[in-house]
Amino acid sequence: VAGLGLGPGREFDLIRGFFAGTAPRSRPDIAVGPGDDCAVVIARGIALSSDMSVENIHFRRDWLSEAEIGYRATAAALSDLAAVAARPIGVLASLALPDRDTDGAANVMQGVRRAAEHVGAALLGGDLSGTEGPLVLDITVVGEAAEPVLRNGARPGDELWVTGELGGAAAAVAQWLRGEAPDEGARQRFAAPEPRTREALWLRERGVLHALIDLSDGLAGDAAHLAAASGVAVILDGDTLPVHPSVARVAATADEALQLAAAGGEDYELAFAAPPGRVDTLAEAFRGEFGIRLTRVGRVEEGEGVVIESRRPSGGAVPLTGFQHFGSDG
Amino acid sequence: VAGLGLGPGREFDLIRGFFAGTAPRSRPDIAVGPGDDCAVVIARGIALSSDMSVENIHFRRDWLSEAEIGYRATAAALSDLAAVAARPIGVLASLALPDRDTDGAANVMQGVRRAAEHVGAALLGGDLSGTEGPLVLDITVVGEAAEPVLRNGARPGDELWVTGELGGAAAAVAQWLRGEAPDEGARQRFAAPEPRTREALWLRERGVLHALIDLSDGLAGDAAHLAAASGVAVILDGDTLPVHPSVARVAATADEALQLAAAGGEDYELAFAAPPGRVDTLAEAFRGEFGIRLTRVGRVEEGEGVVIESRRPSGGAVPLTGFQHFGSDG
Repeated sequence: VAGLGLGPGREFDLIRGFFAGTAPRSRPDIAVGPGDDCAVVIARGIALSSDMSVENIHFRRDWLSEAEIGYRATAAALSDLAAVAARPIGVLASLALPDRDTDGAANVMQGVRRAAEHVGAALLGGDLSGTEGPLVLDITVVGEAAEPVLRNGARPGDELWVTGELGGAAAAVAQWLRGEAPDEGARQRFAAPEPRTREALWLRERGVLHALIDLSDGLAGDAAHLAAASGVAVILDGDTLPVHPSVARVAATADEALQLAAAGGEDYELAFAAPPGRVDTLAEAFRGEFGIRLTRVGRVEEGEGVVIESRRPSGGAVPLTGFQHFGSDG
Repeated sequence: VAGLGLGPGREFDLIRGFFAGTAPRSRPDIAVGPGDDCAVVIARGIALSSDMSVENIHFRRDWLSEAEIGYRATAAALSDLAAVAARPIGVLASLALPDRDTDGAANVMQGVRRAAEHVGAALLGGDLSGTEGPLVLDITVVGEAAEPVLRNGARPGDELWVTGELGGAAAAVAQWLRGEAPDEGARQRFAAPEPRTREALWLRERGVLHALIDLSDGLAGDAAHLAAASGVAVILDGDTLPVHPSVARVAATADEALQLAAAGGEDYELAFAAPPGRVDTLAEAFRGEFGIRLTRVGRVEEGEGVVIESRRPSGGAVPLTGFQHFGSDG
């Protein structure tokens, strides 16, 4: 009779390292943390979304550090929880990167963890694989959403509002693609987007959210999703968009600035349809609470699709095709 | 005032196509299906796990069709729900593959959907991206687990049992790596693994599951996980393993056969620790219900680690290092 002691291999050590210290002790909504075959969470309703980031499609290695790659992908995924006014519980992170790049994996996962902790979410699980190709990071977010706010509740007569400023992330990408170092403010908008988690919950508590979406494809494109889901038309006011200050430095013309602000993707602000006259009275308190503005950018009418109005000569008739990943023409 | 009608682009059409017809109508546990920012599910406890499959690490394109790639990745991920005795609710599927390969994406997603439907799970969401590199598919599974069975409940005196037969998937890989066409039975074990979902629920209902795990890394490696989580030693009987019939055709020696059965990964059978004498009386009913056997393969003792006993001359002292992906030596 021969015996053979078996110890788990290096991959398991790595996985254990990522999750060490993340077991959520004082959270009654996490019954089983990482380390078993599944995590188990308990809440009245669970919101779920997955978001995949691929090197050279969604980011480039010379643009972002490894920790920033993890942070950005996770923050972007968490934005989908904000987009239904869900309270974050945790994330699962699956990472493919070249074999033996344990430092890279640790750095990426550090960014994942920081972005999760930033909104009070725990690291619940994930997977780790080698690859012969580009880095791929898929983030699944899990939140409590007993009363989710969906895209489908906009009604004719509603106002359309957005949080924060638009076009910053697109300005950074435009500068990188020109071979320039982006403005630091714009770079931060791309590298460390801010999921509007608390903002969404604050607005929901005040009963002004008829329909809600986050801006990943650009305002024009995401307004089209909201319009289609609600069975309405959205009329955007191209002259009132809250444009990120870096956009003016990057855009050669006013039309180009509008293009970046209205069709530039990945700002991860919120857009929402609200009953008329209700949000105006909240905007100052919102700014005091969160340090960002609320801006009315359009209205909801009967019909379908998105229309952009502008009093400028070109009338906003710029090619607002919605965001496409920079590496894709699809 | 100029207007511009915006229609979502081709990527959105593709995503819509994948999820068309999957909106679960009659399921009270799915409050929001795919199409909004998040899916929302409702259950007493939610089990969650992610599993990433990477081309040339977990499979090769010349081994599997695209639909099989999707089926296999999804079935493997669903096995993690069986491994905590959870009832499947749905899956989220994130896919990276070369731009414009819309047929490929549709084929992969068809396999994902079939594997999900096979265990009664809905397609809840996911993501789709281009890539310059190999195909990457990350599956997140979601299940109801009010009373999950974890790895940590094995006690000294327990018996260790497995479902089904071991080594079939590893036999297929061994044949492919030799340039041979694998036996059809072995190939099916690799291409279309069977998550033991109903089997786990059946065993849980009968109160015999002290600790439970699925066999993704191979029996020896997964028994080590179970032993570590439970704080016990597992003694495997190398002479009683239920070996898949293809293993005998592939292995040149008895030791090699034991290696394939005990350390070959990705059979996705279940291993569980049960109180002594209880499972023997259930094995026949189990076989009648599910068409596969239950085999006692070892016992639990005080201590730590995994020991393999054998009465054969070599004593089982074969290099049972646990499963490593064929593309990795990590």
